Amino acid sequence: MSQPLDDAALDQLFRTARTYNGYLDTPVGNEQLFAIWDLMKMGPTSANMLPARMVWCTSAEAKEKLAQFCLPANAEKVRQAPVTVIIGMDIDYHENLPWLFPHTDAKAWFDGNLPLREVSAMRNSSLQGAYFILAARALGLDTGPMSGFNNEAVDKAFFADTPAVKSNFISTLGYGDPSTIFERSPRPDFEVFNRIA
Amino acid sequence: MSQPLDDAALDQLFRTARTYNGYLDTPVGNEQLFAIWDLMKMGPTSANMLPARMVWCTSAEAKEKLAQFCLPANAEKVRQAPVTVIIGMDIDYHENLPWLFPHTDAKAWFDGNLPLREVSAMRNSSLQGAYFILAARALGLDTGPMSGFNNEAVDKAFFADTPAVKSNFISTLGYGDPSTIFERSPRPDFEVFNRIA
Repeated sequence: MSQPLDDAALDQLFRTARTYNGYLDTPVGNEQLFAIWDLMKMGPTSANMLPARMVWCTSAEAKEKLAQFCLPANAEKVRQAPVTVIIGMDIDYHENLPWLFPHTDAKAWFDGNLPLREVSAMRNSSLQGAYFILAARALGLDTGPMSGFNNEAVDKAFFADTPAVKSNFISTLGYGDPSTIFERSPRPDFEVFNRIA
Repeated sequence: MSQPLDDAALDQLFRTARTYNGYLDTPVGNEQLFAIWDLMKMGPTSANMLPARMVWCTSAEAKEKLAQFCLPANAEKVRQAPVTVIIGMDIDYHENLPWLFPHTDAKAWFDGNLPLREVSAMRNSSLQGAYFILAARALGLDTGPMSGFNNEAVDKAFFADTPAVKSNFISTLGYGDPSTIFERSPRPDFEVFNRIA
């Protein structure tokens, strides 16, 4: 049985962690991207489907290519951040299930059922997006997740050679500049959106 | 700037954490559900929409009501776990944006656009589902997320009086019994599902 993490860890993950709109000049190296993936990949997905397909935009060219399809306020954040990651999802994730979930024929559950694959890819790549956010925070980094962009245009620009891959959301990544955070929006008490049955 | 959490914390959150298929007899009190919510609610959602609507099934009656709509293997897990939570999502989350995101008229972005609300509710309630999993782990608890159940039947049984709320996925919760975990499925290296641009 595990014990609760200490308050400093809970703060870093949830309570004082914030969405950043701008970042310090501190660079983010590829080895940090690998470290985030090595944590986030351990989070659970249905039948270990791991549908997320990630493009980590670190070059000015890639960030500019992405920024042109973002709402203006988001475009500036993409350009300024050390890294912006596109969290895509492979609707044909089931083709990998024979090796990702080897103990049963899970591929057969999804063969020929596109609507089921679409909803499963969206649900599970979103889970992975949240694991990304929390893995980054666990490693001392900050994020700025966003969905204000043209998904179709991003898919054409970044996933043209893999048409079953669609963008889900994007997120900046780096060491956050505390001067760029907004006032915290309200977080309601348990009884507002929860009930015990 | 934050430092990385220590290895024990990274293990507890990601590396040695597992999906459990059965739980110890150790009870889970309501105050632990409140503590999970108080962490998970801090995770980011688009425009602070917080679309998740959670039903925490703690009574034998509620767990039995849910179990009847699960695949047989999942039904047994639901019955045995101290708690099983239904992570639902409110497609009409935008009605709450005037108080959840008070600094602009975000409700207007979603008014009359049901397809946008559906995809946003699915994406963001899934993020919240992942925050739930990691908040539970951060507090020393274990989870068993599942999507093998009849969503429509669960919606009728648990959300009949709020027709805009639909079930997303469910998860058992408790102190995991190590004898019930399966062998870890493969987790691929960075280059398999990622690229740097």
